[in-house]
Amino acid sequence: MKAIQDEYPDDFAWCYGCGHLNNAGHHFRTGWKEEQTITIYSPKPEHLALPGFVYGGLVASLIDCHGTGSAALALHRKNGHEPGEGVEPPRFVTASLNVNFLKPTPNGVALKAIGTVQEIHPKKFKVETEVYANDTLCARGEVVAVVMPSTFLKNE
Amino acid sequence: MKAIQDEYPDDFAWCYGCGHLNNAGHHFRTGWKEEQTITIYSPKPEHLALPGFVYGGLVASLIDCHGTGSAALALHRKNGHEPGEGVEPPRFVTASLNVNFLKPTPNGVALKAIGTVQEIHPKKFKVETEVYANDTLCARGEVVAVVMPSTFLKNE
Repeated sequence: MKAIQDEYPDDFAWCYGCGHLNNAGHHFRTGWKEEQTITIYSPKPEHLALPGFVYGGLVASLIDCHGTGSAALALHRKNGHEPGEGVEPPRFVTASLNVNFLKPTPNGVALKAIGTVQEIHPKKFKVETEVYANDTLCARGEVVAVVMPSTFLKNE
Repeated sequence: MKAIQDEYPDDFAWCYGCGHLNNAGHHFRTGWKEEQTITIYSPKPEHLALPGFVYGGLVASLIDCHGTGSAALALHRKNGHEPGEGVEPPRFVTASLNVNFLKPTPNGVALKAIGTVQEIHPKKFKVETEVYANDTLCARGEVVAVVMPSTFLKNE
């Protein structure tokens, strides 16, 4: 799968969730799956809530980066580009993150985040995400992602 | 500070966010600060969104475990107990987690999560949390925490 995070320029590739240069991070990768977006991730053995179940903060992290990645995919496509072309994509930050934990998420299974993206403003996208373990819907989330403001670049 | 997580029995001490037996985890610790609750945590250098700023998923994780810990503190106190007495506290799981990211969170600073707990049902508590870096309010979150259902214990 061609992932939007693979195209982030180096200055923006340090995210603990999805930056390919962050060696300690999760390396979430998000791409298109027809008109929806997808991120697949296998939690590590230590990502526990209780033995046998995945930590909710990890599920929230997955939904978070899946959301910003999905928004970047959508605006990139709106601008006429797809991941893999080598064109620098727009970069988003999370304004809000909501997660409803529907069922305990089993550990030892690849998680699949499936997103539906909606533009709510030229610089603001809403991403509704469902997280599945096998075929079980374990969590539902919503991210509002906005084009990264310049304050992030000035390190203020 | 006496923290509620220090009193969780071993079977419930594996949480990646707040379990004292999870060597790879964050070891969030939550206690009372007068009538509010507090968790202080210094993100690691790799917990980045961008260089200089803390990863939103880490802030969400802090709010998550601070929420379940605060709910446990509140019900434990309602039951007549305080951390440090050696009485096994109730254990909560997160039903929902909402985070609004208000300002970029600087890295290299201890984060302080301050919670206000409200009982909304005998087995369900709402925890409103503010996350500060120094004196700057960076994020505001809400957790609805419920007493852990038995399905978590059966590893289904």
